[in-house]
Amino acid sequence: MNAILTDLYQLTMAAGYWQSGKATEVATFELFVRRLPPHRNFLVAAGLAQAVEYLLNLRFTEEELAYLRKLPQFRSAGEGFFQMLSEFRFTGDVFAVPEGTPVFAGEPILTVRAPLLEAQIPETYLLAMVGFQSLIATKAARMVESAAGRAVVEFGTRRAHGPEAGVLAGRAAFVGGCTGTSNTLSGMKYGIPVFGTAAHSWVQSFASETEAFARLYELLGPATTFLIDTYDTLEGARRATQLGKPFWGVRLDSGDLAALSKAVRAILDSAGFPEAKIMATGDLNEYKIADLLAAGAPIDAFGAGTELATSADAPSHGAVYKLVEIASGAEKRATAKASAEKSTLPGAKQIFRYADHDVLGLAGECRMGCEALLRPVVLHGEPIGPQPTIVESREYARRCLAALPDEVRGLEVVPEPWRIKQSVELIQLREAVLGGRS
Amino acid sequence: MNAILTDLYQLTMAAGYWQSGKATEVATFELFVRRLPPHRNFLVAAGLAQAVEYLLNLRFTEEELAYLRKLPQFRSAGEGFFQMLSEFRFTGDVFAVPEGTPVFAGEPILTVRAPLLEAQIPETYLLAMVGFQSLIATKAARMVESAAGRAVVEFGTRRAHGPEAGVLAGRAAFVGGCTGTSNTLSGMKYGIPVFGTAAHSWVQSFASETEAFARLYELLGPATTFLIDTYDTLEGARRATQLGKPFWGVRLDSGDLAALSKAVRAILDSAGFPEAKIMATGDLNEYKIADLLAAGAPIDAFGAGTELATSADAPSHGAVYKLVEIASGAEKRATAKASAEKSTLPGAKQIFRYADHDVLGLAGECRMGCEALLRPVVLHGEPIGPQPTIVESREYARRCLAALPDEVRGLEVVPEPWRIKQSVELIQLREAVLGGRS
Repeated sequence: MNAILTDLYQLTMAAGYWQSGKATEVATFELFVRRLPPHRNFLVAAGLAQAVEYLLNLRFTEEELAYLRKLPQFRSAGEGFFQMLSEFRFTGDVFAVPEGTPVFAGEPILTVRAPLLEAQIPETYLLAMVGFQSLIATKAARMVESAAGRAVVEFGTRRAHGPEAGVLAGRAAFVGGCTGTSNTLSGMKYGIPVFGTAAHSWVQSFASETEAFARLYELLGPATTFLIDTYDTLEGARRATQLGKPFWGVRLDSGDLAALSKAVRAILDSAGFPEAKIMATGDLNEYKIADLLAAGAPIDAFGAGTELATSADAPSHGAVYKLVEIASGAEKRATAKASAEKSTLPGAKQIFRYADHDVLGLAGECRMGCEALLRPVVLHGEPIGPQPTIVESREYARRCLAALPDEVRGLEVVPEPWRIKQSVELIQLREAVLGGRS
Repeated sequence: MNAILTDLYQLTMAAGYWQSGKATEVATFELFVRRLPPHRNFLVAAGLAQAVEYLLNLRFTEEELAYLRKLPQFRSAGEGFFQMLSEFRFTGDVFAVPEGTPVFAGEPILTVRAPLLEAQIPETYLLAMVGFQSLIATKAARMVESAAGRAVVEFGTRRAHGPEAGVLAGRAAFVGGCTGTSNTLSGMKYGIPVFGTAAHSWVQSFASETEAFARLYELLGPATTFLIDTYDTLEGARRATQLGKPFWGVRLDSGDLAALSKAVRAILDSAGFPEAKIMATGDLNEYKIADLLAAGAPIDAFGAGTELATSADAPSHGAVYKLVEIASGAEKRATAKASAEKSTLPGAKQIFRYADHDVLGLAGECRMGCEALLRPVVLHGEPIGPQPTIVESREYARRCLAALPDEVRGLEVVPEPWRIKQSVELIQLREAVLGGRS
């Protein structure tokens, strides 16, 4: 893992901490969103397995150190600093909510407690990894909710923000409830079902659509999905049936999907293929899926690309990673930021989830009748036991989402989707730290 | 390069082409956008160097082949297919516009001519790589235009769609005109200037802001930028001057940037630091930058994060990769898709750029008084000569953008930003291929 895949200032601060003798003070940082993104009632936490893998494998290569040595920012950093970086290992603790947990504004998804320097450097990577996967898992959960039991498959790598984003989108979408992905590497790396049959270029590459269909059937047999809109959708549906053999179904990728799906359904049924399914693709999102189903479109499965893999209506959320506590020897100090509209709550926290609300309290509080969501996953640089499999995380997300009130799971924005109280201890600490300033 | 970082259907089609004896037919695919994204008058082509690097290094690993063998989609694919994949190399040709070229709807950015199987598999990766980098280079060009000569630095990795997207965003933003990036790995990999000093956590980690500033100055000296909004921006500005030593400047990251920058400017000037600069950050985009400068904000440099690294107002564009020609032996056939609203133009094309318009013609046409933008970069699987450096690409983009009409470069959308005529030859070919269908 490239340790310099981070903002330069993390590294200049590291040099400064080292120079100031603060590098080994124990810092606690929390990763959370200040506000939910527009159009969202919750976030599904995802990407935590990759965050942990990154921390456990964080190293500076020789090439990276040579590069840093040449930067003017490190001119006054001594050889001891670079020597330390060459032996860098993450030795701290990580607490995280289980992947698939729905979280809300202000709730820590991940807490890192480590020597200041070790906790600071990973900020950028952790935000990018957990932030992006949570964004996609959330979008997927909304589309899956809309599809009301029908399969939603993630198809978006081509429109993702680079190839890696496509691989990660496949994983995150699965955590959020998708049935699988078209990204083959995502399938191999993460053990996710992969889907896909043929594109328009397949049809175009043959002299006729009929020949293209026949050749595809030779390869895939009864599992074949025929893409029928290259030339004329209804004609394509007829040609699929004219092979006279059972097939999985057809895919529509353009035009009026509601009207076409009904017409295609009629063609399939009257040709004696009532079992053949209809899959729809083409810039689908949760709203379009809901509209199609409300219009009675007989669609059995949805493929979601651009809108899902880029979370198009909310392509970012303001995830932050904030210092909440710092300890030097026996002295511990809670800390917070008082900037206009960007103030933070001091102290290492815990999310206590009750049946109908959360209490955001301090990590040391003891509470009954609720679940403490942040759990240790790494202690002293060592992973704790096996983490859930991705199938378990997906199932956990499904159960947690099902337990939310219907309107929170729905497509419309709810003003206060989930009640979050601050504990008395947290309020008192905030007062003590920021009282004079806020 | 992971060859299975692609949609599964590219690989099932590959197996089908192999089985149908079509794998070695020579196909020409073009990568282009059907329509410009909302709020855009042009796209700055970027990511071509990575596209070429990918094609030249495309291999199937043993692990990947073992994975594919177990998928049901390849049950009927013979051993010969996997043997062929294990020896897979890209042996075709690539034509591309130079990185930094402004392109418009329907104009090929990249053309791949190769045996059908070799040209099909890379579709997904090429779209993700060229699509994303072009998206970011374009957004960067708009922000740089707005900043009217002031530096714009890319700061967005933490909000990018995963860590790799952050590295690529740094590169693409530089091609689009940014001064540099905060992403250190992007700096090392691509030779881009890197920037960054310290975050709020630096200030918070010390008992006082004054001590935090003094320690930072020990590390960075006169190059120091003080982040002054952790507690109180104006107080922070005073503390920066109270060190009594020359410094690069201060950074504002919250609040009313126009009002604060004026107040901070006054504090810096009256304290005897008229040379100290003001940098502004915090969810900036081209519109906010324009508004700040219109309000007379004395800001010398901008840092752009979320909005730039996610192209927030247009987080995707519908880039496609379409089969336009296929040749078997001596027989060549132009091909196109007639789907509703998604029809394509047949034949391998060339962009002929004149001073005030383009002609989209066939690749074989000869035209005078214009520049043919698509140039060979790979022939028979071998790269042609050295490609431009990233500094050259950035300069090329700058010159091309400066040559566009002012309103096209501006922030408002122009209905027809650039005139694109189709050549008579292209129109005739389209008529011949789709005439009966469209």
